[in-house]
Amino acid sequence: MSDLKKIIGEKIRNIRIKKGLTLQQLGHLTGHQASYLTEAELGKRNLSLDSLEKIMNALEIKPGELFDFRELDLNSSDFETRSVLEVR
Amino acid sequence: MSDLKKIIGEKIRNIRIKKGLTLQQLGHLTGHQASYLTEAELGKRNLSLDSLEKIMNALEIKPGELFDFRELDLNSSDFETRSVLEVR
Repeated sequence: MSDLKKIIGEKIRNIRIKKGLTLQQLGHLTGHQASYLTEAELGKRNLSLDSLEKIMNALEIKPGELFDFRELDLNSSDFETRSVLEVR
Repeated sequence: MSDLKKIIGEKIRNIRIKKGLTLQQLGHLTGHQASYLTEAELGKRNLSLDSLEKIMNALEIKPGELFDFRELDLNSSDFETRSVLEVR
């Protein structure tokens, strides 16, 4: 499973919970099924930029809040190592 | 056209040019057609996370480099105003 999907999924989940929204509520706001969002949060959905934009608007966040990889980039070896491990 | 697609497209283009890669070369590295990448750079393609990850790997950049919206978030009103204007 790609790191990017997993990382973005976790971020969506953390922000959704912080905002006190249920999956059903986020589903209602984005037009996505709650089951689809459940899989997206688990990194199992290959979200598109349009879907991500709908989710950002529903969560009322700016791109910089969703796509914040600073702590990841600090231990970037972590990202590269995992990608290399997955390729083998 | 969504802001996110336009912003990400421009970033891909700027980084590709900075790295001295042609569209054909990036196409070869990602398995995408050069014409597809041309449209993606113009914000006309709804790229998925997997495609974005392929492009990042081909450009040898970390997520934080592609998804760097700090200057955007500074004038976030710009992002929100444009989104509102487009909705009308």
